[in-house]
Amino acid sequence: MLPVMIAGMGTYLPERVVTSAELERDWNLTPGWIMRVAGIRERRYADRETVAGMAAAAGRRALAAAGMTVSDIDLIIAASSAPQQTIPCTAAFIQRELGAPEGASACFDVNATCLSFLFAMQSAAHLLAAGSYRAALVVSSEIGGLSRNPADPASACLFGDAAAAAVLTRAPEGGASRVLWAQFATYSGGADLTAIPGGGSLHHPNDPATTPEMNMFHMDGSGVFRRAAKVLGPFVDSFLARTGWSHADVDVVVPHQASRHGVELVSTRLGFRPDQVVNNIAERGNCIAASIPLALAESLDAGRVSRGQRVMLLGTGAGLTLGALGLVF
Amino acid sequence: MLPVMIAGMGTYLPERVVTSAELERDWNLTPGWIMRVAGIRERRYADRETVAGMAAAAGRRALAAAGMTVSDIDLIIAASSAPQQTIPCTAAFIQRELGAPEGASACFDVNATCLSFLFAMQSAAHLLAAGSYRAALVVSSEIGGLSRNPADPASACLFGDAAAAAVLTRAPEGGASRVLWAQFATYSGGADLTAIPGGGSLHHPNDPATTPEMNMFHMDGSGVFRRAAKVLGPFVDSFLARTGWSHADVDVVVPHQASRHGVELVSTRLGFRPDQVVNNIAERGNCIAASIPLALAESLDAGRVSRGQRVMLLGTGAGLTLGALGLVF
Repeated sequence: MLPVMIAGMGTYLPERVVTSAELERDWNLTPGWIMRVAGIRERRYADRETVAGMAAAAGRRALAAAGMTVSDIDLIIAASSAPQQTIPCTAAFIQRELGAPEGASACFDVNATCLSFLFAMQSAAHLLAAGSYRAALVVSSEIGGLSRNPADPASACLFGDAAAAAVLTRAPEGGASRVLWAQFATYSGGADLTAIPGGGSLHHPNDPATTPEMNMFHMDGSGVFRRAAKVLGPFVDSFLARTGWSHADVDVVVPHQASRHGVELVSTRLGFRPDQVVNNIAERGNCIAASIPLALAESLDAGRVSRGQRVMLLGTGAGLTLGALGLVF
Repeated sequence: MLPVMIAGMGTYLPERVVTSAELERDWNLTPGWIMRVAGIRERRYADRETVAGMAAAAGRRALAAAGMTVSDIDLIIAASSAPQQTIPCTAAFIQRELGAPEGASACFDVNATCLSFLFAMQSAAHLLAAGSYRAALVVSSEIGGLSRNPADPASACLFGDAAAAAVLTRAPEGGASRVLWAQFATYSGGADLTAIPGGGSLHHPNDPATTPEMNMFHMDGSGVFRRAAKVLGPFVDSFLARTGWSHADVDVVVPHQASRHGVELVSTRLGFRPDQVVNNIAERGNCIAASIPLALAESLDAGRVSRGQRVMLLGTGAGLTLGALGLVF
């Protein structure tokens, strides 16, 4: 149990709305197919935005919500599935885009695909609780762009672009806010179920053997579903045992918004009531690492999450990894 | 001060030795030029190895040195400048290559280029100290490959391939081992001084506007040197003030092996005596994130570092970021 709180959150959504009807026309799909299989009506696509620019916009709003300025931040973690450049880390570009003072913050990236925000929040919470830093900006910013594979509409239709940021600080003594427990488990037998094989050392962009397909997203959706369904129940039971919460004690479940079935997989199928579960998949699509913090930030804006409530962030990510983080908001 | 220790280390070096004489012939350089400007006589190049395969080999040796098995590990952090694939994270592939039990460890990647290992060790140490995990495998594994730019021999000649791993555990009570303090500062005004612009969302591998040059390493070496030289002195003074150590108290300084001048920049130029400083640049080159843990592991093997000694890991990385971590080994 860590005396750490989310002091403020902020989001950035690209202006351009891409409806499923538009994608169905472009990809010659039956009208209504995307809503039926994925539960997604529309999503945003970045046009001229960069990952760091979107992250900085979300970060500025999170700082404003926390009543803080860029000078108050001494740790910046970029927590996304892909960087802006291979080198340097995206967090350094976010420091620059924010105009945060030179030398006053430490910048590094955390990557665990869709669970990047949860892992980053776990590390940041421990670093803040121990006094290594005073205030951390944890940002997930995703631009799917050319990684979407139009030849595989079942996955390409899922992804939306977005950024979401949280300012973490030590919680005031006597208050309810705290980070209770974070738990992760990787099942690497499923490492190939969700993949972009390219972009790294294995299939270097300059290797003539690297094909354009390798630089795009591939997913065996039903394989992920089957594997995850087997292990999620015991994982969540063990997580709840550590927090001391029952299913009913959780005020708000914020699941990763993978798809309609993906949301059900990590919420109602696990025994949570629909009214406990945040769901923005229809309007936002799957925003990869930004998905969970975006859903949390939008719940906060909508008054659905408030101070003192028991919030559970929960999802699966490529790896295959399961992750959950419990906090008293 | 965290009751955490390095229980064991291991390394993996590809078999293939590439001498500077060979590179000078290939690139039409004056014989002896690389040794003169960079202080590097030879380095290793991976042939058929993968980043995860090298990491697993180093990891197995680190586990053996710690007297542990893959089943003892519940956290795997891949701490490198580049992943094996864009998705999933490299740590998941390391779990699979190690044959570590499914679901028994959490896997994520940390990226801060040459300082990745130090950031990963800072987070891991806090997570272990708080009891979130029992034993962490932190691995840096680097294959420069096609990111080396033969048109820029001044940078291309620097890089060697290697992997180095550390098993971190809680330190036994009553022992001397502990992690004292880690400190980082990013100066993003220098973000463009060291870069691979490609490989991420900004210059996607499938974007026709992405050139092969964008997927290769670029460095303004003297720009990095000038900027870092200005800020390193006060940074190290403030780091030492936090640890309570004087310059003379440090038994072993393990600097990032950027180049001959890079090693001097973060060691003797800061007031450390040459006999305090580990230096393997001539035989290993700059192994990016693997550089610091490789130098530490080799010092350990050579009997240069032993239990109870005050060890300072220190370097600069793209960002531009300064980093230091102090431990009683």
